[in-house]
Amino acid sequence: MTRQRFSCVGRPAHRVDAADKVRGEARFLADLRFQGMWEAAVATPPVAHALVRRITIPPVDRAEGVAMVAADVPGINQIGIVQRDQPLLVSDRVRSAGDRLAIVAAPTRAAARALADAVSADLKPLPVVEDVRHAMSADAPSIHEGGNIVARLQVVRGDIDAAFAQADVIVEGEYRTGCQEHAYLEPQGAVAVPGVDGRMVVYSTCQCPFYVRRAVADVLGYPQSMVRVVQACTGGAFGGKEDYPSEVAACAALLATASGHPVRLVYDRAEDFRWSTKRHRTVITHRLAATSSGRMLGMQIEALYDAGAYAGLSVVVAERGNSSACGPYGLTAVDVHTTIVYTNGLFGGAFRGFGAPQVTFATERQVDELARRLAIDPVLLREMNLWRSGSVTASGEVLTGSVPVLQTLRRAVRAAGYRPRRLDTKHERVLRGVGVATSYYGSNLHKGGERHDRSHARVTINADGSVNVAVGLTEMGQGLLTAVAQIVAEELGVDKERVVVAHVDTDAVQDSGPTVASRGTIMAGMPTRRAAAALRLRMVRTVRREGIADADIRQGMVVSRSSGQVMTWDDLVGLCYAQRVEMSATGFYRPPPRPYDATTGQGRPYAVNSYTTHIAEVEVDEGTGLVRLVRVTAVHDVGRVIFPEGLRGQIEGGIVQGAGYALFESLVTRGGILHNPGFTDYVVPGIADTPHIRMEVIEQPWKGGPFGAKGIGEPSLIGVAAAIGNAVSDAVGVPVREIPLTPERVLWLLHDRQ
Amino acid sequence: MTRQRFSCVGRPAHRVDAADKVRGEARFLADLRFQGMWEAAVATPPVAHALVRRITIPPVDRAEGVAMVAADVPGINQIGIVQRDQPLLVSDRVRSAGDRLAIVAAPTRAAARALADAVSADLKPLPVVEDVRHAMSADAPSIHEGGNIVARLQVVRGDIDAAFAQADVIVEGEYRTGCQEHAYLEPQGAVAVPGVDGRMVVYSTCQCPFYVRRAVADVLGYPQSMVRVVQACTGGAFGGKEDYPSEVAACAALLATASGHPVRLVYDRAEDFRWSTKRHRTVITHRLAATSSGRMLGMQIEALYDAGAYAGLSVVVAERGNSSACGPYGLTAVDVHTTIVYTNGLFGGAFRGFGAPQVTFATERQVDELARRLAIDPVLLREMNLWRSGSVTASGEVLTGSVPVLQTLRRAVRAAGYRPRRLDTKHERVLRGVGVATSYYGSNLHKGGERHDRSHARVTINADGSVNVAVGLTEMGQGLLTAVAQIVAEELGVDKERVVVAHVDTDAVQDSGPTVASRGTIMAGMPTRRAAAALRLRMVRTVRREGIADADIRQGMVVSRSSGQVMTWDDLVGLCYAQRVEMSATGFYRPPPRPYDATTGQGRPYAVNSYTTHIAEVEVDEGTGLVRLVRVTAVHDVGRVIFPEGLRGQIEGGIVQGAGYALFESLVTRGGILHNPGFTDYVVPGIADTPHIRMEVIEQPWKGGPFGAKGIGEPSLIGVAAAIGNAVSDAVGVPVREIPLTPERVLWLLHDRQ
Repeated sequence: MTRQRFSCVGRPAHRVDAADKVRGEARFLADLRFQGMWEAAVATPPVAHALVRRITIPPVDRAEGVAMVAADVPGINQIGIVQRDQPLLVSDRVRSAGDRLAIVAAPTRAAARALADAVSADLKPLPVVEDVRHAMSADAPSIHEGGNIVARLQVVRGDIDAAFAQADVIVEGEYRTGCQEHAYLEPQGAVAVPGVDGRMVVYSTCQCPFYVRRAVADVLGYPQSMVRVVQACTGGAFGGKEDYPSEVAACAALLATASGHPVRLVYDRAEDFRWSTKRHRTVITHRLAATSSGRMLGMQIEALYDAGAYAGLSVVVAERGNSSACGPYGLTAVDVHTTIVYTNGLFGGAFRGFGAPQVTFATERQVDELARRLAIDPVLLREMNLWRSGSVTASGEVLTGSVPVLQTLRRAVRAAGYRPRRLDTKHERVLRGVGVATSYYGSNLHKGGERHDRSHARVTINADGSVNVAVGLTEMGQGLLTAVAQIVAEELGVDKERVVVAHVDTDAVQDSGPTVASRGTIMAGMPTRRAAAALRLRMVRTVRREGIADADIRQGMVVSRSSGQVMTWDDLVGLCYAQRVEMSATGFYRPPPRPYDATTGQGRPYAVNSYTTHIAEVEVDEGTGLVRLVRVTAVHDVGRVIFPEGLRGQIEGGIVQGAGYALFESLVTRGGILHNPGFTDYVVPGIADTPHIRMEVIEQPWKGGPFGAKGIGEPSLIGVAAAIGNAVSDAVGVPVREIPLTPERVLWLLHDRQ
Repeated sequence: MTRQRFSCVGRPAHRVDAADKVRGEARFLADLRFQGMWEAAVATPPVAHALVRRITIPPVDRAEGVAMVAADVPGINQIGIVQRDQPLLVSDRVRSAGDRLAIVAAPTRAAARALADAVSADLKPLPVVEDVRHAMSADAPSIHEGGNIVARLQVVRGDIDAAFAQADVIVEGEYRTGCQEHAYLEPQGAVAVPGVDGRMVVYSTCQCPFYVRRAVADVLGYPQSMVRVVQACTGGAFGGKEDYPSEVAACAALLATASGHPVRLVYDRAEDFRWSTKRHRTVITHRLAATSSGRMLGMQIEALYDAGAYAGLSVVVAERGNSSACGPYGLTAVDVHTTIVYTNGLFGGAFRGFGAPQVTFATERQVDELARRLAIDPVLLREMNLWRSGSVTASGEVLTGSVPVLQTLRRAVRAAGYRPRRLDTKHERVLRGVGVATSYYGSNLHKGGERHDRSHARVTINADGSVNVAVGLTEMGQGLLTAVAQIVAEELGVDKERVVVAHVDTDAVQDSGPTVASRGTIMAGMPTRRAAAALRLRMVRTVRREGIADADIRQGMVVSRSSGQVMTWDDLVGLCYAQRVEMSATGFYRPPPRPYDATTGQGRPYAVNSYTTHIAEVEVDEGTGLVRLVRVTAVHDVGRVIFPEGLRGQIEGGIVQGAGYALFESLVTRGGILHNPGFTDYVVPGIADTPHIRMEVIEQPWKGGPFGAKGIGEPSLIGVAAAIGNAVSDAVGVPVREIPLTPERVLWLLHDRQ
């Protein structure tokens, strides 16, 4: 790889939003105040499944508050992002403990809460469906008309029966993964401000302001042009602020319209735990066929995703799991069936990894089980079967160009000092294990979301040489604003400090799709780079018209081989303004369309894959069952590093969040009601749980990303639970088939071993 | 003229902002509230000219308020828009009663006022210079180092001595015009809100948000990228909100930085009268040479503009007066000298007409004086001398193409039923008169402002078919938002109700120059039309790729000659979104550069002229001196009518405001201090003073404007005072040489006649 010289891209950089956040000056949603602002609250049912006979709102004086029920919604009382199966306010049926019987607003939060508590409902409870297999059975009550199947997806390629018939060994297992709470620092919230000119302005802590705009317009019965959504400084998201913020914003906007006041709805932590979306619970049945020499032949996978009571994004999430279920392995036949199922449980939604961590856990565990059965080292087994250039994927795609998956594995093995477990010594009550997981992820949207796959940006150079950038993708803590500032500065040839990138405002750019699928850097970077390139070209042409034929811009100076430093950036901007050069440019980016057949899962689901190997080393306490994650090595194929500190933050954060998913985080429900809605009983990793982290990156620029960058947000997490599962299996000597690996569950494993 | 069929342009239309304004829901500056907002006040001196020995600020607790003096300004303590002669806060010298000794902010308006009142200054009074001629004399105190001449301008062409030598008749006169208060409904104001990410967000009632942005950035020492200016709903401007809002906003922003609070500074009516800019007082010496047959040969003009204590926009204002001083008449030689002079009087600034009403008054009065001397009917005299295609202007420009000035005169004469005064009957104590004035105005900026003469806009079609438009020019009551909505709707082929045009936000578009010089419709219309045309083309191409080769968009439908109505607008937008067509486009407009020599005033000062004839009919009460304006006929060359009701509003408003200027409005100062700062003592026309108005338009599309439109804002006023002056002269039989024609002044004229 020839490395270009960059002055901003890939260089150490201060986060542009760091100072504000460190000083406590950043204004998150709960910090926003508007004159005359009211607070909202939500009345929810005491049960997760019931018929509604009547909802009674207490009489309320207009000055003291407003309350709305389904009948009061002026637009469409539907909030489902993909399917119209979810009323914003329920009227005849409760399907989830997060359903809204009524929403209220009052001058204070306490008054709003009291008003919500005074809402009563005459409910006829129905049997609660909590398990996906039960939900799929004939005797389960139908949560929606038409039954409990949301959708079925599949990937079918080759002759699966022949593959299994040909196999010397077949590894079978049923894997279960639990829900996970996003545990973002800032809970859900929105403020709706009835604006000038009859418009509704919504401030939202969110990933996808354009989704929020559509939802608000729909429930208000407004055209989208009359709704403006401004992303507030957003304190974390992890997928949890993809779809759910639309519900919060829609409630605030309805109450703002009803009351005439700005209305804020901010969840407390317990509400956020109870009502917002979670990582999908899955049950995955996995069969892996291989030869005795370790050549994998086929996989037969049935994955059940628990959607909860409404479709939400479940089909979209499961679609990614479906496409990547077989991992980065060459197989002669695959047979993947994914079913998304309604239950009355927690609401499944987008979460970092988007359905992939679950199937990756199952498949990577199966690969290790195969290694154990064949007594082949798991690394060697992977080396034998991982994709190369020319390999055919489960989707039937022939991989060409750079496929650095094997490199991630080999670099990780070297970096981790990986040695098979046999060389480890046993020490007192501590069992040591090491686990490898190789994973891949399609950067950017799956083919199924192709219609959203375009982005828009605007770069404006002001008369004083400062630069404003508007993008359609959101900063939620991952460092996007900084990466974009670096990209624009690099392209323009100025210092990054000149560049100010604004939070998304739906008035500022065209709908650029959601900030999900690790697409932020790509989809904000490409159009901003294009816009900056257009401006640079105009400026260079302007100075060249002044007679300096080889002038170019470098590091804030106009330089020429013949004349040296010709003028400063400020002078150049002045010259362009004097000549009335257009000093604002937009960029648009639309990845090329790809072939894909959804009925068979064949084609090109993704524009590009990025590859990862995680190696986890654990210590398991035989007495307590406690797993200590000692060290994680991560090697990522990233295309190009833009913002090194941001990249490191993502990789470390993904490991820690993945470790929580693998080891601690357990949402306990009974009858569809969450019993541990808070950080006291829902344990997320703390600093003491953070392993030693070693990371390396492979930079092979991808032409579809800005300066070659791929996404990193999700790859950082996807393989972590799988690696930890493999490490714990390695340590305890029995197959791990379920996460989280809480001490109780590990003790049962140790018990099984004996 | 072949008239195209339009579905929006030129059709009757509801103002898009009418409903909000009628219902009282529009939020003007004083309606804006922010949490924790403080109010500001200004401490001004009791005299208009003094040396400052010391300014004393009372001690003030940080929780109770903040006060700033010149030394506290973190950036540049200069607010002059063209020249750096005006400190925002004075420190060593008071030159004007509107100077700021200190600015203060406190939690309430009363506390702020009290704090400002407690500011004391040890001043050493200096002689106050009130008269331009005195200011220019050798014995006048120098208000600035370098003397009292701000600038000198001229237009020199031909052999003026020969023209006068050749003349049979020379008409001479000295004309004086008074100051005029803009009398917008909403006084000056701004709110500065310290924003997220260290930015300063300023809400401003203004014409030129980009001027405000620059001024705020300069005084704060910020790059422009860190300042965002959002135009609040603006209740009138008339030029008074071109430059002055920068002063108000800069004060609010400084105090917001100092206090950490949002800070609002809103003037009460008296403050606004005292401190804000006015129409320039002028003294114009005019000599007109002609043959005995009525052929005008030359004009020799000396125009003195009273700038007040600072340059402000005075040179720019006077530049327009300078270029158009000789009116739309063919002359063999011109000799115009314009001098802008410092005094300690009221602050001269931009005002509808921009220096032209003053010189138009003088020149049109002179033409009537010549007619009287030659006993030629004033209309006939004008007909003989007005420009035709091929005429050479005072600037040496050979007029080509459409020069419909004579048409405006003839249409006005017909429409008014004009007959020479001699046919009028005298009735009791009432003298009747009729006066004609023909005027012209260069639509858009003078060559001197060419660097600002570009504009940017953005049109976005949302997925639901609604349309958002961002422009860089402001709605201040004139109807711009509606005209732009019509232009975009016309170009796209949809209903105007689909289109939402936002108030200017400096984050939304590139600096598009000021909204002045009757350039709003042109400079907002051209780039929005271009952006809409680009979108339309993309959409039409998209549907044509579907196999309908002759598809086009008309009135919200896709139509084809072969297939009839193919699909709806909504379906077309859906198709485009499905295919990820870029649905946002920007437009940029830069009128071509023009040759101009500022030292001689020769070249092309304007891109295009628009022509007007006003005919005024008055009744003068011989007993009281009261002038009743009975009827005004206005014929305008407008290029193309976009928004008929808006056009009518401008034409009627210009007449009424011009009548106030001609008849009533008088700002009385003594020692540079204004003595009638309010509507009790400063009389503006009321409904009873409104004449019968008859208007006609000539539509000859101009290729430089959207659908052919020229500007109308200022032409509606420029000739009004001249026509009224001529009518009163006609009625009383003696030359009118000064406005306003208050009853007292008219009684003196009647006294002179006897």
